[in-house]
Amino acid sequence: MFKSSIRTSVLRGAIDALLAVVDEARFNLKPDGISVRAVDAANVAMVNLELSNSAFDTYSVDKEITIGLDLTKFLDLLKMGNPDSECEMVLQDSSRLKIKMGSLNYHISLLEPSTIKREPKVPEIELPGEVILKGADFRQGIKAAEAIGDYLVIGIETKPQEVFFMEAEGDVDKVRLELSKDDLFSISVVGEEYVRSMFSIEYLKEMGRVIAGADEVKLRIGNDFPIDISFRLGEGHVRYLLAPRIEAD
Amino acid sequence: MFKSSIRTSVLRGAIDALLAVVDEARFNLKPDGISVRAVDAANVAMVNLELSNSAFDTYSVDKEITIGLDLTKFLDLLKMGNPDSECEMVLQDSSRLKIKMGSLNYHISLLEPSTIKREPKVPEIELPGEVILKGADFRQGIKAAEAIGDYLVIGIETKPQEVFFMEAEGDVDKVRLELSKDDLFSISVVGEEYVRSMFSIEYLKEMGRVIAGADEVKLRIGNDFPIDISFRLGEGHVRYLLAPRIEAD
Amino acid sequence: MFKSSIRTSVLRGAIDALLAVVDEARFNLKPDGISVRAVDAANVAMVNLELSNSAFDTYSVDKEITIGLDLTKFLDLLKMGNPDSECEMVLQDSSRLKIKMGSLNYHISLLEPSTIKREPKVPEIELPGEVILKGADFRQGIKAAEAIGDYLVIGIETKPQEVFFMEAEGDVDKVRLELSKDDLFSISVVGEEYVRSMFSIEYLKEMGRVIAGADEVKLRIGNDFPIDISFRLGEGHVRYLLAPRIEAD
Repeated sequence: MFKSSIRTSVLRGAIDALLAVVDEARFNLKPDGISVRAVDAANVAMVNLELSNSAFDTYSVDKEITIGLDLTKFLDLLKMGNPDSECEMVLQDSSRLKIKMGSLNYHISLLEPSTIKREPKVPEIELPGEVILKGADFRQGIKAAEAIGDYLVIGIETKPQEVFFMEAEGDVDKVRLELSKDDLFSISVVGEEYVRSMFSIEYLKEMGRVIAGADEVKLRIGNDFPIDISFRLGEGHVRYLLAPRIEAD
Repeated sequence: MFKSSIRTSVLRGAIDALLAVVDEARFNLKPDGISVRAVDAANVAMVNLELSNSAFDTYSVDKEITIGLDLTKFLDLLKMGNPDSECEMVLQDSSRLKIKMGSLNYHISLLEPSTIKREPKVPEIELPGEVILKGADFRQGIKAAEAIGDYLVIGIETKPQEVFFMEAEGDVDKVRLELSKDDLFSISVVGEEYVRSMFSIEYLKEMGRVIAGADEVKLRIGNDFPIDISFRLGEGHVRYLLAPRIEAD
Repeated sequence: MFKSSIRTSVLRGAIDALLAVVDEARFNLKPDGISVRAVDAANVAMVNLELSNSAFDTYSVDKEITIGLDLTKFLDLLKMGNPDSECEMVLQDSSRLKIKMGSLNYHISLLEPSTIKREPKVPEIELPGEVILKGADFRQGIKAAEAIGDYLVIGIETKPQEVFFMEAEGDVDKVRLELSKDDLFSISVVGEEYVRSMFSIEYLKEMGRVIAGADEVKLRIGNDFPIDISFRLGEGHVRYLLAPRIEAD
C-alpha cells in the first residue's frame, strides 16, 4: 500500500507548515510524492504542500490513496522522536498508520477523509508584482507590525525607485519595513506603478513563524488581491494563498 | 551534632529525586551518611535515597538524629547558590538548620519529624525480570506514552527473542517503545516467559524527569507487581518502588 | 530639532533601567545628552538616567526640548530591531518620533509631557556608608531574600570587621548575604559603628534585574535612610534612590 521513510525533522517541518492554516488535512499519497491542499474554516487562507518522493529515503505507493490526519496530534508524536532519526511510516489499512522512529512505534488512527473540509480549487489569479526576499526579513515585517495594528499592507512601489514594503498603521503609531533592490533577491512589477493589498496579521503571524526558516520566499502581489507566498522548506515546497481585506478609504 | 559540606549541585539533585514522590520527608542523619525513605500520600510510590558520607566533602554526626524538611522550600534555597559552590550545613538544634553557600547564609526552621507521614517498610518482593537501560531511553518511553493514555505497561518478552517494552494504549492510538539486547545494558527473566505490569503515567512522569539524568537505570519487573527502579544520581543512590495498577481484561 | 543614532542594544538597556521604576517618563533632550528623572506613583523609588552625547554615534539637538515616552511600548519596538543595529531617531514635531532600525521605520506618537508625573527634586542626603560590589552579587542577595520575606535589610557593620550584608527575615526562616572586604571593590563607613536600613523587596527585585548586568554597583547607605544605588550600564549612567521602610522594634 504505502510505505516510506524520511528524516523526522523534514516531516516535522512539513506538518508545522500546514498547521499555520489548518488543524486537520487530507494527504494524497501518490507515486510521485505526497501532496496536501487545504483551506481554513473561514476560507481566507489556503496552504499547499508538495513533498516529492525524492524528499524520502524510501517511498512506495501501489496506487494513489487519500488519508486524513489530525495534524496537532501527528506533530506531537513526531516530536517524541529524535529529529535526526529516520521516521518510517506504513499504512496498515485506510484507517490506521504505523509510525516508527528508532525504537518507538506508534499506531495511530486516521481521520475519515470525507469528514475533512474539501480541498479547495486553486484560483487562477494574475498578480503583477513579484518579489523574492529572505524568510527572516518577511517575518521581521510581520512581527514589527503585530505591536501596531491588526492589518498589514504589503506592496511594491516603483516611483521614485522600486521598493518592497510592509506597512501597519494603528490609531496613533505606524511602522513600515522597506526593502530596496539591494536588500532583495529580486523585485518586479508588470504594467502597474504600484501594487498593494492589505491582510490580517492574525493569519500572517502563523505563516511568518514557518517562513522564518526559509532562505528565500517568493511573494506575488496584486492590488486588493490575494497574496501568493511560496518557499522551499527542507525538501518540501509550501505555498500559502491569503485573501486580502479590502481597505476602506 | 551534624555538620557537613557537599557540592550544591549534588544536594539539589538528591532533593529533586525525592520531590518526584513527596513534598516533605524525614532525613536520617547517620554516621555513615544520610538516608531518606518516604511514601506518597496515596501509598502508591515509595522513594529511598542514600547519600553516603563519601558523597560529602566533610561530614560529621555525633549520634544519629532525624530531621524533617520541607523539600520544595529547601530546593528553592539551594537554587539561590551557585551549583558549583560548596554547601555547608550545620544543625543548630533539632528545629533549625544553618545552610551556607558562598557568601549566602540561610537559617531555616525544620519540620517536626513526627508530623511527617511515617517511613514505610520496604516490602520484600520477588521480581523475576530485570533490565538495565539508559535513563534517557526510559524517559523517552514515558514521554511518548503521555500523549496516548494514562497508563503504561512495562515488561519483558522472551519469545521470539528477549525484548524490553513500554506500551500505552489510548482509545484509538497505541505506542510501544521496544528495546532489544543490543539497545540495553542487560536483560533477563527468571522462570517466566514474560513479565508485564501496568503503571500510572502520572507517577512515572515525575520520576522520568529525574531518571533522564542517570546514565544507567535498573528496572526489576514482575507480573502485576510493583516495579523497582534504581539508579545512581551523582553521588547518591535513588530507588523508586511503584505499585501496579491491575489490568482489567 | 533632535536627531541621533545609537546602538539599539544600548538604548534598550537604558529604557529597561527606567522601567524598573516607571512606565512612562519625560526625556530631556539637551545638547550634551539625554537625561531622565522620574519617581514612581507611590513616591518610594526614584530613577535618574544620564545618557551623554558620547554614548551616541551621532547626536544633535538645536535647543533643549522635553518629550514624553510610553516606555513599555518603546521597549517593545526596540526589541523588533537587531540589537547590534543602529537605531536612528528623529523628532518630527513635539508629538511624533521617527525611529529607524535597519529597514524598519516606526513613527510613534509621544505623550504630552505635562500629563506625566512631575520630575522629583533629588533630595540632598548624607549617607555615611558606602560600598562598591559586583552587580551580580547584589542581585543574588535580592533573589535569595525573595523566598524568605517581603523586606530586606541592607547595611554595613564595622565590628569585629567591616562587612556588607543583606538580610531578610520571615516568620521562621532567615537569610543573610555577607561580603567582607575581599569580596568587595571597596567599603567604608564614616563616623558610625554600623549603618542599616530596610527596603521593600518588591522594588529591589525590579532594580536587581537591571543591576545584574553591571560590573560594579555603588551603594550609599544610612540608618533608616534611603539607599542610593548607582552604576554604569553600557554607555549610560543610572541611579536609583529608594526610600526605606522604618523597622518596627
